Amino acid sequence: MKLGIYGYGNLGRGVECAVRQNPDAELVGVFTRRDPATVKTLTGVPVYPAAAIADYKDQIDVLIICGGSATDLPKMTPVLAKDFNVIDSFDTHANIPQHFAAVDAAAAAGGKLALISCGWDPGMFSLNRLYAASILAQGADYTFWGRGVSQGHSDAIRRIPGVLDARQYTVPIEAAVEAVRSGSQPELTTREKHLRECYVVAAPDADKAAIETAIKTMPNYFADYDTTVTFITAEEMARDHAELPHGGMVIRSGKTGLNGQHTHTIEYKLTLDSNPEFTACVLVAFARAINRMAERGATGCRTVFDIAPADLSPLSPEELRAHML
Amino acid sequence: MKLGIYGYGNLGRGVECAVRQNPDAELVGVFTRRDPATVKTLTGVPVYPAAAIADYKDQIDVLIICGGSATDLPKMTPVLAKDFNVIDSFDTHANIPQHFAAVDAAAAAGGKLALISCGWDPGMFSLNRLYAASILAQGADYTFWGRGVSQGHSDAIRRIPGVLDARQYTVPIEAAVEAVRSGSQPELTTREKHLRECYVVAAPDADKAAIETAIKTMPNYFADYDTTVTFITAEEMARDHAELPHGGMVIRSGKTGLNGQHTHTIEYKLTLDSNPEFTACVLVAFARAINRMAERGATGCRTVFDIAPADLSPLSPEELRAHML
Repeated sequence: MKLGIYGYGNLGRGVECAVRQNPDAELVGVFTRRDPATVKTLTGVPVYPAAAIADYKDQIDVLIICGGSATDLPKMTPVLAKDFNVIDSFDTHANIPQHFAAVDAAAAAGGKLALISCGWDPGMFSLNRLYAASILAQGADYTFWGRGVSQGHSDAIRRIPGVLDARQYTVPIEAAVEAVRSGSQPELTTREKHLRECYVVAAPDADKAAIETAIKTMPNYFADYDTTVTFITAEEMARDHAELPHGGMVIRSGKTGLNGQHTHTIEYKLTLDSNPEFTACVLVAFARAINRMAERGATGCRTVFDIAPADLSPLSPEELRAHML
Repeated sequence: MKLGIYGYGNLGRGVECAVRQNPDAELVGVFTRRDPATVKTLTGVPVYPAAAIADYKDQIDVLIICGGSATDLPKMTPVLAKDFNVIDSFDTHANIPQHFAAVDAAAAAGGKLALISCGWDPGMFSLNRLYAASILAQGADYTFWGRGVSQGHSDAIRRIPGVLDARQYTVPIEAAVEAVRSGSQPELTTREKHLRECYVVAAPDADKAAIETAIKTMPNYFADYDTTVTFITAEEMARDHAELPHGGMVIRSGKTGLNGQHTHTIEYKLTLDSNPEFTACVLVAFARAINRMAERGATGCRTVFDIAPADLSPLSPEELRAHML
């Protein structure tokens, strides 16, 4: 399958690396809104201007859109879905129905196939919530995130006056995880589930106490959590916090038996050294499925819930049954 | 959906309980090869002779076949798939391709839809092997089972002269699990992955040393493992070993990045108080999918790999996108 990358940040670079691990995939090019002459790809893939994407209509089987969910994807995906089979990682959970409707209309009109909200959450975590809830009809669901870098929370700290750089780690609280794993179906507050660990580089003349207070009292982002703030140097930031690890757990526990006497726990856990590179691997696997489904004539918008797992694998149905079932 | 249960052992009883937790499912009846007058169901579901199953052709949407994999299912499923949409939990991994071919031919000829090898292994573990391998193209897979009762190994011990009853627990070795979780992709021998714990009730005059040797040297079942044998009384067996817990883990770790510099681990873990009741819950969820797919005109044989996850849920696609994605 011939893939294109639209947008070349951390996620785009991750897709570029992931394609090299999948012999049935090749990259046609990277499309960027920057001046292509200023963009150098990791593996020498050619770079084209985003404005020229329509010229590559017949050369790309699936276009992987690597933009941000806040402002890029709500505009980009519906426009591109008219001319390309597309896949994005739109992750603003509350706006998924409206994004789905816009992309579905565009893809259906263009006779193309689209997949939105693909990655690990939404994505693999969503799939595991669905499988677990369908199996254990009576039970409770829990999602824990981390330990990992939250870009949104890091950005929120960087907007505080006097902050030069910041990194925020979301950390699941082990006691809460163990309570959930026990099958006791605890009711947990926001504060009981996650800690927020902040590492901050302050300007030389900054009021550190004021920064710490501004972080810990910030509504939505930090006020409902136990938060730690550690001031570090720019050198320490570069040395110890350059990576983007993440992960987490989806856990469902439920009861079965005539009188609910048996407890079951289903846990799906990700431990990721690189959030964007793992997300990119998920995107490439689902691009394979979208390419196959489009070849079979499917059009409109889909989510990970609509994809038969066999379509994700480079193996044939016969090989899958013989070796993976 | 109207379901039938064909075969009424632990798994059949589990399905009977699972149906009560799913408001969109109802049970038409239990079909047994025993004299129906001697079979009392847990919830008062009517019992019919297996030989009369053809009379219920038009009343059952999906028939859940709860027979054993060794001799029952290879015969039962192809015969029943001519007249019913069926689902079984055939778990002899090596014979899946041949079972698939027989069931596919029968279901296609009868215009019916069949799903084989559904449960947790094969079943949910298979799905997780497939998803993880499709995402992390370069990596290694590990499956651990337990701690849980292996019926096959328990039966093998019961066949030794002087043994009145036996229960065998398969136990994953924590050091091996931790090595796999670390992402180091260790090479593990059979002995390094699992222990086998045996609890045996011996006849009063039995030679216990001979029984212990017979167990520990039994080829295929025990010789390749570190095995413990503990002799207990019939009362202890009834008190401490009446349940059928099981579970296990599917773990894949892999590398990403330009130089494979980032490690990722995907873990799916089940902790089950009752192996048959959990398997039954999986069967009922997949019966929902088979019923929907049959209504859309699908025929022939499928595996869990072919089922789009959305078809498993009682929720609508809109509800799933709004609340689970």
